[in-house]
Amino acid sequence: MILILERNLKEEEIQRIVEKVKEAGLTPHISRGEERTIIGLIGDSRAKDREYWLNVKGVEEAIRILKPFKLASREFKKKDTVVEVDGVEIGGKGVVVMAGPCSVEGREQILNIARVVKDSGAKILRGGAFKPRTSPYSFRGLGKEGLLYLREAKEKFGLPIVTEAMSIEQLELVSEYADIVQIGARNMQNFSLLEAAGKIKKPILLKRGMSAKIEEFLLAAEYILSNGNRDVILCERGIRTFETYTRNTLDISAIPILKSITHLPVVVDPSHATGKRELVIPVSLASIAAGADGLLVEVHHEPEKALSDGFQSLYPHQFKELMRKGKVISEAIGRFIL
Amino acid sequence: MILILERNLKEEEIQRIVEKVKEAGLTPHISRGEERTIIGLIGDSRAKDREYWLNVKGVEEAIRILKPFKLASREFKKKDTVVEVDGVEIGGKGVVVMAGPCSVEGREQILNIARVVKDSGAKILRGGAFKPRTSPYSFRGLGKEGLLYLREAKEKFGLPIVTEAMSIEQLELVSEYADIVQIGARNMQNFSLLEAAGKIKKPILLKRGMSAKIEEFLLAAEYILSNGNRDVILCERGIRTFETYTRNTLDISAIPILKSITHLPVVVDPSHATGKRELVIPVSLASIAAGADGLLVEVHHEPEKALSDGFQSLYPHQFKELMRKGKVISEAIGRFIL
Amino acid sequence: MILILERNLKEEEIQRIVEKVKEAGLTPHISRGEERTIIGLIGDSRAKDREYWLNVKGVEEAIRILKPFKLASREFKKKDTVVEVDGVEIGGKGVVVMAGPCSVEGREQILNIARVVKDSGAKILRGGAFKPRTSPYSFRGLGKEGLLYLREAKEKFGLPIVTEAMSIEQLELVSEYADIVQIGARNMQNFSLLEAAGKIKKPILLKRGMSAKIEEFLLAAEYILSNGNRDVILCERGIRTFETYTRNTLDISAIPILKSITHLPVVVDPSHATGKRELVIPVSLASIAAGADGLLVEVHHEPEKALSDGFQSLYPHQFKELMRKGKVISEAIGRFIL
Amino acid sequence: MILILERNLKEEEIQRIVEKVKEAGLTPHISRGEERTIIGLIGDSRAKDREYWLNVKGVEEAIRILKPFKLASREFKKKDTVVEVDGVEIGGKGVVVMAGPCSVEGREQILNIARVVKDSGAKILRGGAFKPRTSPYSFRGLGKEGLLYLREAKEKFGLPIVTEAMSIEQLELVSEYADIVQIGARNMQNFSLLEAAGKIKKPILLKRGMSAKIEEFLLAAEYILSNGNRDVILCERGIRTFETYTRNTLDISAIPILKSITHLPVVVDPSHATGKRELVIPVSLASIAAGADGLLVEVHHEPEKALSDGFQSLYPHQFKELMRKGKVISEAIGRFIL
Repeated sequence: MILILERNLKEEEIQRIVEKVKEAGLTPHISRGEERTIIGLIGDSRAKDREYWLNVKGVEEAIRILKPFKLASREFKKKDTVVEVDGVEIGGKGVVVMAGPCSVEGREQILNIARVVKDSGAKILRGGAFKPRTSPYSFRGLGKEGLLYLREAKEKFGLPIVTEAMSIEQLELVSEYADIVQIGARNMQNFSLLEAAGKIKKPILLKRGMSAKIEEFLLAAEYILSNGNRDVILCERGIRTFETYTRNTLDISAIPILKSITHLPVVVDPSHATGKRELVIPVSLASIAAGADGLLVEVHHEPEKALSDGFQSLYPHQFKELMRKGKVISEAIGRFIL
Repeated sequence: MILILERNLKEEEIQRIVEKVKEAGLTPHISRGEERTIIGLIGDSRAKDREYWLNVKGVEEAIRILKPFKLASREFKKKDTVVEVDGVEIGGKGVVVMAGPCSVEGREQILNIARVVKDSGAKILRGGAFKPRTSPYSFRGLGKEGLLYLREAKEKFGLPIVTEAMSIEQLELVSEYADIVQIGARNMQNFSLLEAAGKIKKPILLKRGMSAKIEEFLLAAEYILSNGNRDVILCERGIRTFETYTRNTLDISAIPILKSITHLPVVVDPSHATGKRELVIPVSLASIAAGADGLLVEVHHEPEKALSDGFQSLYPHQFKELMRKGKVISEAIGRFIL
Repeated sequence: MILILERNLKEEEIQRIVEKVKEAGLTPHISRGEERTIIGLIGDSRAKDREYWLNVKGVEEAIRILKPFKLASREFKKKDTVVEVDGVEIGGKGVVVMAGPCSVEGREQILNIARVVKDSGAKILRGGAFKPRTSPYSFRGLGKEGLLYLREAKEKFGLPIVTEAMSIEQLELVSEYADIVQIGARNMQNFSLLEAAGKIKKPILLKRGMSAKIEEFLLAAEYILSNGNRDVILCERGIRTFETYTRNTLDISAIPILKSITHLPVVVDPSHATGKRELVIPVSLASIAAGADGLLVEVHHEPEKALSDGFQSLYPHQFKELMRKGKVISEAIGRFIL
Repeated sequence: MILILERNLKEEEIQRIVEKVKEAGLTPHISRGEERTIIGLIGDSRAKDREYWLNVKGVEEAIRILKPFKLASREFKKKDTVVEVDGVEIGGKGVVVMAGPCSVEGREQILNIARVVKDSGAKILRGGAFKPRTSPYSFRGLGKEGLLYLREAKEKFGLPIVTEAMSIEQLELVSEYADIVQIGARNMQNFSLLEAAGKIKKPILLKRGMSAKIEEFLLAAEYILSNGNRDVILCERGIRTFETYTRNTLDISAIPILKSITHLPVVVDPSHATGKRELVIPVSLASIAAGADGLLVEVHHEPEKALSDGFQSLYPHQFKELMRKGKVISEAIGRFIL
């Protein structure tokens, strides 16, 4: 931490701040510039956060040198975390495709789509039983019934399942059925849920919040990690910007950034990032080229009848095209589609 | 709802869409333009949401004419909702000031500050017992102990209490102690929590999410209203933008907009909106001038020792100044500070 | 400037950086932390910009301590700059209202509106002769003819004129007719135009760019100031955010921030900030309450016939209402409407 | 255009609007819904813009059905525009790499870098002689001297040149030397400059403004096209968002969107989009995978000595790596590096 002091402080005021630094178990290192005095704090300055120092009288700005997350950082763990689910490795050399409908809408529907995505090479089945919806009047998922259908699809096609839990109650139920539990963008800073997710034994797929900075995203992961669950998969799904042509703006740079500063696997959801079916393939290929460890794609055999997100779901033949092109791009960068 | 069809559709494709409209119990009204055909849907088109129509083949765009929220709208209820708490009316002619520390940090602290804000004219005491924090390593509140201190402060100074609940579990506990339960910005789309909040008997102060559009904000309120709780207070607390000088950007226009399209009371949190103590007074005065029904202000007798948000908390003498100036501005627009 | 060095640099690499600092005429002050080494640069580090240091090998981050603008800063000039135009003082104790149509559309129109705003108490007449328009197919102003009408209105009603110049060529022409030359938001970083504006003898009203940070806004002002023109009026007119309800989002906090870090006058354009007639009055009152030195408001006697921005122009009776309410708010904060 | 009328309008008010529509030479098509009446305008509604209708009393909202740009649209011209410069085709099947320093800093420097990029396979040389800089105190380019060095490099290495013009004056000079004239992000809505650019005989590389929506970007291109210059190359270079980790946020989806709605070539500037050298390669590969027709990359043989943007410039060996990997990705999608 570096403290930048206000202009024209008296010596005694500076000394008072120096004392505060020492009280915090840190060694102050003072630089007296022509216009400002700055104090470098030597020691593990994570003990007191930035806010603490901003509160100290005479401190104008406090600048963090160390990243505020630990367990999620590359410094803490150099080797890539590989999350294994029923033999499928996420975060390894292979690019993992998770596909399926936005919502589980019925037994037939999910079995149908599971077959389709399995046939095209998806390794994990996605599908929502509990759906976060902006309006209370929209379809909100089949709940437990949806979980049962997902289990049936899993057993039939040998596809592990990723599905969302929106509350601590749902977390218990969902973690019985799911192989990976998803925490949605709107809950990325639902800290109670994150803590609970840190205590279960299933991997967590954590989506980036719509207005979350990368650092906040990793601090959300840190909540899970620090509660004991080390299997966290990060999912970039677009951020909110002024551009209205797409539902969100995919932050493509987040992929190489995350791969560099954290050891956790990074997947991309091109369906929510764009909100437009015709953009899903190019944006998926871009994500693989940028280094993503996987994709989370919405596919529907009859998008027109989908109860949610149909307009951004791929048709089966489009998904097949995505798998084919994704394979080529993966190989171009020395990887492969799992 | 208006449907804009794709270019060059064949007549049979148009008829297929027309059939869909009729199936939905709506009357189609077709306009054939030179370049596009559009279909107006007559009837209560809220039955099927915008997504539904976007899913229909041949529909390029679907435009909602009606607002997606009902119970929160002025059309539904013309008269202002006035939330009453222990005789304090929020949403009436008086401007209500809710003040107190960011977090309850101890018995002495909250009693001290309660006295200070009471003396200066605050009508409601704020203070967090459960604190949402970006980092798992920051101070997260005293929990139930904090609630007990809040109750003591309430009894001693006759100040009703507003405090946050972050999960369904906390909601039960908090609603025993609090007079108003706060749902924070990060939980604005925690739909499970919103539903639970709709089932309790205490007023809810709902903060706008950092990247929530006004319409989404009102749909979040709709979740609470539609579950039976009609006492919702909206709180504008700044949105996330590219500007980094302030913690958030207060959306001052949201105040008159909300007052015009909803009957719910609108208060402003100038402390989180700006994140800088020296901006709290001008921004508070601006909010009152723009028509806010109240303020939610952080005050601390020793901000330097605050465990959270000290840098944006007013000193007692500043709070007194705010109350004095706020009074004059309120009167200038024909209101008064409660 | 503070340099944060990369982790694990060898001593010789650190020494190499130290040499660079000395070469730049600065004194390095080294703090060796447990995880990082930082170097404080003593001396006027404005000589080399932040980029320069980011370029130096081994430097991970460079943090500016001093603001990058000089002439625009309060430190450089403590006393408020008061821009005087035909006896009207902008930036003094009085709040100045500049009003008129978006575009000059004809002789009758501008004379009519000039009379209306003069009667209600406006002190300066606004009106565009050269109009920046997003589409090349929109009405782009009357050009020189518009300037002639503005001059006639000025002579008839004794109202000094503010009008926009979009290029260096127009700057020459406009500055012959205008009392204040406006540089629009889209040209805020048209550096060639800013330099030219710095060389004329007329005051400049500089609008904040749609995505300009406060610091960039002041650096744009610095371009004008450093070329010799000290009469710069800053105009906050809303920034671009994700919210689509309003045309832009007025950054109300920018008013007290600018008043604190610069000596230049700060006015607000509530018409472009909101894009909605019904929001202009509350947002104007908020701006005055927050400390704005003036308003730049669109008024039209027949908004329905306006060739641009009619939907956000006040009717004459609304402008009268604004002046009346603005007067009361101004007095409430110890100022007055000029 | 579709007009949505206010609620509860009287029949005569509706008729008044209908008259307005007819006056505009359009045929009104009325749909009377239960809550609202809407009017579809049949005919070329581009004659009157959206604003015009928003101004009409009783009209609450006006929704454009047609895109506001014509010459830039795919509907206007189905076939891809291919811009040819000295035999290099931009917008054809090959992916074109334009590379060079941010600024021309001297004769040696530009000749050195020209050789480097030529050797690695770049087809066009970039380099700024006139530099837009946020601060008036930063290095602003060598001006005409820089143009002379660029010409020398061109002659020596057979590389056509792209370089920026910031004003109409510079446009004349620059277009004598450059093969492609760049208009920078900050000037994207400098309409005077766009018009002038439409009148010259050289291709224009138009960068997207930092806060420009895709539609506004294409309207800026329309300014150039409608003034007679049909050789416009669009350049996505990142937009401004709340994320501060990168300089801007590359809008990767903009690539397939633009390729779909316009016939103009689309290139990407990964250097400004990210502002970080280590992100340039992954983001470049992503851009090619998403369908970009070219890249505009900053390369410097001694980034540490660069007078601008050194921190985001590739080292020669990194540029070589980019070319090698870019080739593989291009081929994976059925294209090639030119």
